[in-house]
Amino acid sequence: MSDIKRITPREEDYSQWYLDVVREGDLAEPARVVKGCMVIKPHGYAIWEKTRDALDRMFKDTGHQNAYFPLFIPMSFLKKEAQHVEGFSPELAVVTHGGGEELEEPYVVRPTSETIIGHFFAKWIRSHADLPLLINQWANVVRWELRTRMFLRTTEFLWQEGHTAHATHEEAYAETERMLDIYATFAEQWMAMPVFRTVKTESEKFAGAETSMSIEAMMQDGKALQSGTSHDLGQNFGKAFDVTFQNEKGESEYVWQTSWGVSTRLLGGLIMTHSDDNGLVLPPKLAPVQVVLVPIYRKEKERAAVLEKCTAIHDDLKKTGIAIRLDDRPGKRPGDKFYEWERKGVPVRLELGPRDIEKGHVSAKQRTEGERIFIKMDQIETEVPKLLEAFQEHLYNRALKFREENTLQVDNWDDFSDVFADGKSKFVWAHWDGTAGTETAIKEETKATIRGIPMPGHGPEPEPGKCIKTGAESARRVLFAKAY
Amino acid sequence: MSDIKRITPREEDYSQWYLDVVREGDLAEPARVVKGCMVIKPHGYAIWEKTRDALDRMFKDTGHQNAYFPLFIPMSFLKKEAQHVEGFSPELAVVTHGGGEELEEPYVVRPTSETIIGHFFAKWIRSHADLPLLINQWANVVRWELRTRMFLRTTEFLWQEGHTAHATHEEAYAETERMLDIYATFAEQWMAMPVFRTVKTESEKFAGAETSMSIEAMMQDGKALQSGTSHDLGQNFGKAFDVTFQNEKGESEYVWQTSWGVSTRLLGGLIMTHSDDNGLVLPPKLAPVQVVLVPIYRKEKERAAVLEKCTAIHDDLKKTGIAIRLDDRPGKRPGDKFYEWERKGVPVRLELGPRDIEKGHVSAKQRTEGERIFIKMDQIETEVPKLLEAFQEHLYNRALKFREENTLQVDNWDDFSDVFADGKSKFVWAHWDGTAGTETAIKEETKATIRGIPMPGHGPEPEPGKCIKTGAESARRVLFAKAY
Repeated sequence: MSDIKRITPREEDYSQWYLDVVREGDLAEPARVVKGCMVIKPHGYAIWEKTRDALDRMFKDTGHQNAYFPLFIPMSFLKKEAQHVEGFSPELAVVTHGGGEELEEPYVVRPTSETIIGHFFAKWIRSHADLPLLINQWANVVRWELRTRMFLRTTEFLWQEGHTAHATHEEAYAETERMLDIYATFAEQWMAMPVFRTVKTESEKFAGAETSMSIEAMMQDGKALQSGTSHDLGQNFGKAFDVTFQNEKGESEYVWQTSWGVSTRLLGGLIMTHSDDNGLVLPPKLAPVQVVLVPIYRKEKERAAVLEKCTAIHDDLKKTGIAIRLDDRPGKRPGDKFYEWERKGVPVRLELGPRDIEKGHVSAKQRTEGERIFIKMDQIETEVPKLLEAFQEHLYNRALKFREENTLQVDNWDDFSDVFADGKSKFVWAHWDGTAGTETAIKEETKATIRGIPMPGHGPEPEPGKCIKTGAESARRVLFAKAY
Repeated sequence: MSDIKRITPREEDYSQWYLDVVREGDLAEPARVVKGCMVIKPHGYAIWEKTRDALDRMFKDTGHQNAYFPLFIPMSFLKKEAQHVEGFSPELAVVTHGGGEELEEPYVVRPTSETIIGHFFAKWIRSHADLPLLINQWANVVRWELRTRMFLRTTEFLWQEGHTAHATHEEAYAETERMLDIYATFAEQWMAMPVFRTVKTESEKFAGAETSMSIEAMMQDGKALQSGTSHDLGQNFGKAFDVTFQNEKGESEYVWQTSWGVSTRLLGGLIMTHSDDNGLVLPPKLAPVQVVLVPIYRKEKERAAVLEKCTAIHDDLKKTGIAIRLDDRPGKRPGDKFYEWERKGVPVRLELGPRDIEKGHVSAKQRTEGERIFIKMDQIETEVPKLLEAFQEHLYNRALKFREENTLQVDNWDDFSDVFADGKSKFVWAHWDGTAGTETAIKEETKATIRGIPMPGHGPEPEPGKCIKTGAESARRVLFAKAY
């Protein structure tokens, strides 16, 4: 539906490269007529569906149930939790008129649903027997953003938001960690995108949370993408919405809540983790088309035999559960087809011509690296799945290697400033004195922010040191990077 | 999460019965704090997910692709199609402020997406090679409704909207029919809800359509529920949004478009087609829990053996793909469990106690009618699926019989008025002179509306007659009923 245009190389202009990959991959386009919004095109939406389905299974396997709450939230609800309203006020879209009349109380279009869900939790929860209550919602949300970029930050985006209520703080905290774990598992095993699990500093945490955790991934420009967050809300929303339960002793207590979410932003992370100067690269587990099969023939008389064999291969592989596309479009040259599917990120391309039939094999090529290989006809059903698995692993290892090569421990301010000079970024583990003042000062000088304090087992072990900026005592290194 | 309350019998108060079934089935509740909106609770949402997944497969199997367009639509877009804006203006929710500032041009929250999608179709379509373009969107929409009822009519609802563009009117019309067929197939084969396929009269058609088709189902009070619509939009939106293509002769033409949708309203139809005075009744194909297995034991020493056997049955049936729930909640009596699952509409209940184990069988009961039967242990895996299939068929046949018993051909005005007197309704095939004036007069006097003109093969064959109201010539009978 669009002409093929050049993809700007990453070295030349990273931001433009990203936009080019999105456009040439036919993933999305800016809505323009609706400020900061995008249209998610079929290929992009198909990746989102795979993302949604995989996560949804993981949520259900851990006992969560989906539900749906109203898009609109009375303005007064937001004001019930002081930090929450302060955090979200600047970003609200407000409905003032409905059915031709001005509303008595304006509604906000949900930027997130803690408040309206808190209201219903208060009605649904009475005793400890009703807990834990484990709810998830797939929905669209709106946050009025000044600077937007497709998938990474848009005024409207699609996401899931988990909302749970528990009888004890301990249990809520465990849920917060469990859901972060699920996000990390999804990022690493499905997206092939390595992540650090971190706890956010006070100034970076969610408006209304006690503790916010996140998974942080490294993009190819060395910047961090906060890819999923999980919040221990304490009793903050319980108190704001009077969500109480009778504990086993018959006493009334406020519930302990969590919330957690990932969004279409993940697709931005997916794109920026794997794609190259030839366009989109998709890990097989999230690729709407995992294998494309291109018939090769020069003469019309070769056509029937090649297409017949291709159809047989297509049908066999489809039966094994592989998402395969036979690109038999007439009047399009193989080279043009290769080019198109390459830009759409298809992990494996198979080609079959008369000589391949003679030799009893099919030619296969992975989307990145790796030479062309030949697979014997009778081994296609075992070898192609192996190739996909290997490619999934390859992408993960390549991304991990890139992150390792671009993650440093830095112990003096000059080196630290250098890392972040001239628009550059890497991941830096450095000591910090734990104050918001120092955090702000570092951010103002370098644009690097604290992405988080590593969770046990993720990142360097705690060791005492001196703050990179002030020289004050520090108990452990934290993760610095510029961020999307 | 809620106390069990009485379900008002249908005979006593049909409207209250419906609300009671929704509440006791734990399907949804009115949001109250957000005008006309509802919360879809987990059990209700799970039915919607099954609905969505089944329809989505049917759409994809017929070549449609999902995409996602912005929630907000510039007000000026609606005004580009004169009938469209006239139809939707009274129902709009309007966003006037974003990010703390008043917007230059207000946005409406989409009541449907023909306009914004038309805008993008104009960018995407250039030549006949880009056609047909077959897009579907799963989304929430908002229509400011004065009188709302859960699922049947809510201010915000969930739906899918298909939007397609074609090179010829003939092809667009065929698509309109094809999608109506898919809706009818889904209604009949999945929901076990018989429907009539009809063409809407001028006054009942979609704002901006050339032709609107619908499937009409009979509810248990004899009223009709318009359950799905499919519209031939002609070139109306093509002209409004300048969606042109180069045809094979190299000439520029406006595309021919269709749109079609079903919504969470379907769940209202599902509830009102099958449920009874004991609560919800679900057809197996859409039941989140198809089979519940309740262990029966009086003494603690019986418990282990019963639960062990139940677990084995549960695991075996689960492997066959049946959605089975083993209700082993301690401290809850079997009778209370029966009652709860009955209200949630579970199609088949299995019970197993020590005596059943001795006799080598399990006791089974369908949700409605039918006696208790006993299934031999070694036949469970074959017999339970058969029972579910039989129940699905039974529900369809029961609904069809009900519709047949409540559908009449009426040829004089007194009888016609009688059918619709005192809040009553049936389906009536009657002659109509084809004028909007007569249609309005009939509606004003009886509250019955023309549900549609039957499509070929659906409803009585065309035969000349005299209009029920004016006595003027009529070529065929049309379907009258009161409607939701």
